[in-house]
Amino acid sequence: MREINSWCVMLERSEFSEALAPPELLARFESVRAESVWRAAMLSDEDCGAQSMDDASPVKWHLAHTTWFFETFILEAYEAGFKPFHQAFRVLFNSYYNGVGEKHPRPRRGLLTRPSRHEVMAYRANVDARMIKLLAGTDVKAGLLELVELGLQHEQQHQELIVTDVMHLLHQNPLYPAYGLPMAVKPAGDLRWHEFGAGVVEIGHQGEAFCFDNELPRHRQFVERFELASRLVTNAEYAEFIAAGGYEEASYWLAEGWDFVAKLTARQPMFWHKRDGAWFEFTSDGLQKLDMAGPVLRLSYYEASAYAQWAAARLPTEAEWEVAAVSGKEFEQMFGVAWQWTSSSYAAYPGFVAAAGAVGEYNGKFMVNQYVLRGSSVATPEGHSRASYRNFFPAGASWQFSGIRLAR
Amino acid sequence: MREINSWCVMLERSEFSEALAPPELLARFESVRAESVWRAAMLSDEDCGAQSMDDASPVKWHLAHTTWFFETFILEAYEAGFKPFHQAFRVLFNSYYNGVGEKHPRPRRGLLTRPSRHEVMAYRANVDARMIKLLAGTDVKAGLLELVELGLQHEQQHQELIVTDVMHLLHQNPLYPAYGLPMAVKPAGDLRWHEFGAGVVEIGHQGEAFCFDNELPRHRQFVERFELASRLVTNAEYAEFIAAGGYEEASYWLAEGWDFVAKLTARQPMFWHKRDGAWFEFTSDGLQKLDMAGPVLRLSYYEASAYAQWAAARLPTEAEWEVAAVSGKEFEQMFGVAWQWTSSSYAAYPGFVAAAGAVGEYNGKFMVNQYVLRGSSVATPEGHSRASYRNFFPAGASWQFSGIRLAR
Amino acid sequence: MREINSWCVMLERSEFSEALAPPELLARFESVRAESVWRAAMLSDEDCGAQSMDDASPVKWHLAHTTWFFETFILEAYEAGFKPFHQAFRVLFNSYYNGVGEKHPRPRRGLLTRPSRHEVMAYRANVDARMIKLLAGTDVKAGLLELVELGLQHEQQHQELIVTDVMHLLHQNPLYPAYGLPMAVKPAGDLRWHEFGAGVVEIGHQGEAFCFDNELPRHRQFVERFELASRLVTNAEYAEFIAAGGYEEASYWLAEGWDFVAKLTARQPMFWHKRDGAWFEFTSDGLQKLDMAGPVLRLSYYEASAYAQWAAARLPTEAEWEVAAVSGKEFEQMFGVAWQWTSSSYAAYPGFVAAAGAVGEYNGKFMVNQYVLRGSSVATPEGHSRASYRNFFPAGASWQFSGIRLAR
Amino acid sequence: MREINSWCVMLERSEFSEALAPPELLARFESVRAESVWRAAMLSDEDCGAQSMDDASPVKWHLAHTTWFFETFILEAYEAGFKPFHQAFRVLFNSYYNGVGEKHPRPRRGLLTRPSRHEVMAYRANVDARMIKLLAGTDVKAGLLELVELGLQHEQQHQELIVTDVMHLLHQNPLYPAYGLPMAVKPAGDLRWHEFGAGVVEIGHQGEAFCFDNELPRHRQFVERFELASRLVTNAEYAEFIAAGGYEEASYWLAEGWDFVAKLTARQPMFWHKRDGAWFEFTSDGLQKLDMAGPVLRLSYYEASAYAQWAAARLPTEAEWEVAAVSGKEFEQMFGVAWQWTSSSYAAYPGFVAAAGAVGEYNGKFMVNQYVLRGSSVATPEGHSRASYRNFFPAGASWQFSGIRLAR
Repeated sequence: MREINSWCVMLERSEFSEALAPPELLARFESVRAESVWRAAMLSDEDCGAQSMDDASPVKWHLAHTTWFFETFILEAYEAGFKPFHQAFRVLFNSYYNGVGEKHPRPRRGLLTRPSRHEVMAYRANVDARMIKLLAGTDVKAGLLELVELGLQHEQQHQELIVTDVMHLLHQNPLYPAYGLPMAVKPAGDLRWHEFGAGVVEIGHQGEAFCFDNELPRHRQFVERFELASRLVTNAEYAEFIAAGGYEEASYWLAEGWDFVAKLTARQPMFWHKRDGAWFEFTSDGLQKLDMAGPVLRLSYYEASAYAQWAAARLPTEAEWEVAAVSGKEFEQMFGVAWQWTSSSYAAYPGFVAAAGAVGEYNGKFMVNQYVLRGSSVATPEGHSRASYRNFFPAGASWQFSGIRLAR
Repeated sequence: MREINSWCVMLERSEFSEALAPPELLARFESVRAESVWRAAMLSDEDCGAQSMDDASPVKWHLAHTTWFFETFILEAYEAGFKPFHQAFRVLFNSYYNGVGEKHPRPRRGLLTRPSRHEVMAYRANVDARMIKLLAGTDVKAGLLELVELGLQHEQQHQELIVTDVMHLLHQNPLYPAYGLPMAVKPAGDLRWHEFGAGVVEIGHQGEAFCFDNELPRHRQFVERFELASRLVTNAEYAEFIAAGGYEEASYWLAEGWDFVAKLTARQPMFWHKRDGAWFEFTSDGLQKLDMAGPVLRLSYYEASAYAQWAAARLPTEAEWEVAAVSGKEFEQMFGVAWQWTSSSYAAYPGFVAAAGAVGEYNGKFMVNQYVLRGSSVATPEGHSRASYRNFFPAGASWQFSGIRLAR
Repeated sequence: MREINSWCVMLERSEFSEALAPPELLARFESVRAESVWRAAMLSDEDCGAQSMDDASPVKWHLAHTTWFFETFILEAYEAGFKPFHQAFRVLFNSYYNGVGEKHPRPRRGLLTRPSRHEVMAYRANVDARMIKLLAGTDVKAGLLELVELGLQHEQQHQELIVTDVMHLLHQNPLYPAYGLPMAVKPAGDLRWHEFGAGVVEIGHQGEAFCFDNELPRHRQFVERFELASRLVTNAEYAEFIAAGGYEEASYWLAEGWDFVAKLTARQPMFWHKRDGAWFEFTSDGLQKLDMAGPVLRLSYYEASAYAQWAAARLPTEAEWEVAAVSGKEFEQMFGVAWQWTSSSYAAYPGFVAAAGAVGEYNGKFMVNQYVLRGSSVATPEGHSRASYRNFFPAGASWQFSGIRLAR
Repeated sequence: MREINSWCVMLERSEFSEALAPPELLARFESVRAESVWRAAMLSDEDCGAQSMDDASPVKWHLAHTTWFFETFILEAYEAGFKPFHQAFRVLFNSYYNGVGEKHPRPRRGLLTRPSRHEVMAYRANVDARMIKLLAGTDVKAGLLELVELGLQHEQQHQELIVTDVMHLLHQNPLYPAYGLPMAVKPAGDLRWHEFGAGVVEIGHQGEAFCFDNELPRHRQFVERFELASRLVTNAEYAEFIAAGGYEEASYWLAEGWDFVAKLTARQPMFWHKRDGAWFEFTSDGLQKLDMAGPVLRLSYYEASAYAQWAAARLPTEAEWEVAAVSGKEFEQMFGVAWQWTSSSYAAYPGFVAAAGAVGEYNGKFMVNQYVLRGSSVATPEGHSRASYRNFFPAGASWQFSGIRLAR
């Protein structure tokens, strides 16, 4: 799990140098910043302030924290005569950067009724104006463009969390209110299996474009012969697993997964509900009849693993997934639908070196007890997907757009 | 602890028959209902929605629940052609009346971002209008006036909780925002001890005016000779206890109290803070220099007991307190400043009988592991104090306006 | 709850001066010390070492701790050339006397596999020999006899705990092994109600014989008219309560009691089991058919209270119980069968003063959130019962010989 | 973690066919069975009965459970006229095989004071005699020899746990009693780094000898160039890490590791103690001066990882470790000293297939959130080490003989 922004503390990598020229960057800055606001536009002040669990944050906090990032890591370093918008925000909207002062305890973010959403929007406006002025300046200093890009990538990650966190919140409400963000998914075709032969492959990011440090270095792995499914597991298929007693049969489950099942209040995906014998799903449009052709979403690693076991298949490794993603074969739903659990524990690539210094303080610190998800989801912002991207969450996390692509 | 409204489920007592004639009751209805709104007037929507701990409720919930009471127990029974304002509110704003359908889990009240505060205010307006129409009618049915009075008393109890709950919330915020409700306390004079001889006394409510069932029946007790302090313990006195190592010396504390101390993050009253060697207190006006002449507030029973032990005194029993309150002797701060912990466990008076039926469902159910507080506080609404009133909380509760009056 | 020996830290009271002359005391010392060993005689070393829950202690610990008491409070003060048997035992077998050095954490007593039971028995023999020598000496110093009596009373309290703790342990074992201590109870006659008129009564210990400080001072109380049952509630009667749905109907239960029920693994007394539709009870002879005429045992306060509510009666106050006990009326099973829950919270009698100094360190420290039980049980040693005796446990404790005598 | 015997549920693999001829197997059976008894010989009955934490089991339970394995999986299947030694033992000494009836809850194993150790030894003697008779018979059925070998391998695993569990127990005792099992470790030479070039390697078990299913199938991996340390990290080196503030500097630690540190009662290896400024270690001989040249033991994965980070190195992957182990280069302490944490999450080898049927019920069920340790320890029985062996524990486990071999 990103601990909201584990991805976001990145070093200034020398690999990343393809900085946009200021005019384009300016446009991109404005567009990315606007997207965050747009994702909160249909929410009330109360919706934006509440926190539904420790792992989630209030929308207001996401809006403020992404702004804090620009103020702290860019304006403070590059703005002449820098003065913080509000001294207290530096603590309140820090996430976990130990190097940057005391942080406000995460589980209590929902208690920060002040500053109000209105004040946070004023904070955004203030920082945006100062950033635009800085970027429009003639004297763009070394490292600035990379940091801006990093800030935008960071904000895009939080944009996905805005969606998953607020939907988790609204789902707690017995009224099942609609969030309202459009999130249509194109149906996929029939399931086919694409085969890949054994051999040494290369994975990891290549090229000059932006990437996070965990995608590096590009390196070799030996992959045995495998097959990968052409599309994601559907709701219909997962409903069949449930109907076949999938949640009642220990042999499909990892031992920890079986403990996970024992604590579930209902033996079904987190957002599924049964009404008069029919399945419904909580969606951006509220509680809706379950779309049987759609991809199953919001699964934990345990559920994904148990389903695969039942289906006489398995989850792919991340190397298999990445090889397939760039193979040119006809896969559907690799990106933009649901993150896909892999059986790979989140670990450093060979040769990965934790960077020194403040921004890179925590590079590898989440590389234990988490599992890699590949692809991207319907909530991932435009332009934030690539074949080498490594998302990661603990095995029990199930409030993301996380689904299954089978391997065998 | 009232579990927000343990006080509020009262039977229709035959003792209570002094119903106001409709015109006066109408005025009183409007005035009490307005007071709740007034207490929330200076709060933002976000302030009204958040819940700072399981024991507290959001202000919005208090505003809705008190309205739900009138709708459920009065309009549903007395209004012709009754239709609920919104079917779902019947569950959402129920507190714990098992007899009246499924309730929403209490610790999740802060997640109810919908209905919005605006919708709750519309709910209030709607129920107020219907109530006023009902009360202005010519055909006032038996039992109605008593139920209206009960609803108003119930609402007054929640008015105090609005204050204590929202102040607990605002205190979580590192900005220590001001609530803004005026809460001045007149300073008391020097401490004197008033003596009372041993003998059989009578305590409990008498007369025809409203009271809660736990104040009945009026009965005899034998009280030994005792002395009671003329005023509350001051902040200065309590600071002396701290300075003398009161929180470090086990012998002052009950065994459970010593465990309570071990879990405290700071060894001082909940709202006290030390800044550069000086005491500050979080108040309705934000963080302020501690008023040394003012009463010490927000103490647990454990702290009250330890202070008394240190001061070579003790807490009074509730019988002692009540006898003194009606004695005509010169006591200060009996009412309207701080609730006063007594050493009396909350228990049934001899002859107390749990009522049958829906409203009286839970009359004595909180009579275990709670301690009685007497008097009333600066947050208690006008007209809601009397000598026989029995407030009660668990020994560890410390977010109320709870203080100490010593006995010996 | 005594926290194993909350009763046992007593001051040297001036009221207690009726010390036995040495020869009788010597005989009494030997007899009481032998009783502890007898109660462990049928247990294996493993039985004596295990601890079944935090609230219980291993038998071996009881045997050592009672010995530690004599060594620490008597031999150390009165023996010429005192040297402790083993320095480490002074910590290991201390219970909670903060004034007497570091204690070993209570929940870990079951991990003390060393010293072995054999070594503990050697410790007992050593201390016994030194005590006997001391008591047989010609120069008996002031205060010694009182302390010996206190040590014996203390040991008798632990004798009851040896029985309740080891039965709780054996009950955890699916084999339900028999403990083997004889514990027959004479059946009682038909239920009758004895009436008492209202008036001022006196309760508390009187006379020169030994008592604990919480039984003092003797004082006056006003008691309303009441009736008390002539015998305890039987297993048959309690089975009827269960059959009538007593554990399924919230209205019989205190709110905390209803939470207690929700956490029970079985809705019945702790030692009851159903086999092929019939009730069995775990007894000193293993799992036996439930004796329907016998008293119901091992109830929490919550269960006792719920039963009384269902039976349209109530629990007596401790004053009512004590008045009845000395009234000369025909009550059965007041002593020697089961401790009887009263509705009285454990609190100081008027005029009770916590003693200064080491032994009296903790006199009143358990007087919060516990309820008084009166009488004595089948496990209480001979000569350890009296009408003014105040036993106390938290409302949820149910592994004692605790039953119900109804009042109304 | 093996959940005591996660290793032990193995399928009957066709790969394993090199069964010993009966006479040799008989000798091996007797020798392995004797080793378990030998490891408990210096312990008292009380030592054998206690359980120091949920993750550990009493020695008595290990002695009984290994016997249960032979009775359940071999005698029941192969013995003519099979009758269990004691019906109840089938539940009490089952570990977690859901397919073989109700098991006794693991955290309560320490409460099983009956059967006594003596009865368990009688159980061992009975099953041993029946096994020997069976093995000496003329008609050895198919599959029997493989199951016996599996039972012996299983028992050897529990032999290591007997040592680690009882030492954890004795370490809880303030007396720090000596266990007494000889466990000398030969000192290692100076640290050197052995280099290995990049390339495709093969790992996993090969040959006909016994192995567990998680060591299969043998398969290819691509390994980058690496260096591996010639010996384990010493106590002296680890003490240097502590002295350098290793436990106080977040940047060395995984995020979860930093949380682990926050919960430690002392910031040092579990069995280390400081006395007058010098380090001591709890060993089989009790508390002893820390052997600075000896290997650091009883580290969690978090500590191993933090040390490596501080030392500007890293933990090896399991493939690197295995390649080095069979390389013929001069490594010390690969086996028989301490298990060595690798950075590899415990996962299925490519092509691993979970077996069908009762014994293979749980083959891969622990393959989540655990890390692989390689080598073997001073407590591993003779003949139970091999280069392909995969031990595994959760990252927080630190009561094993677990140490560090660095890579870079």
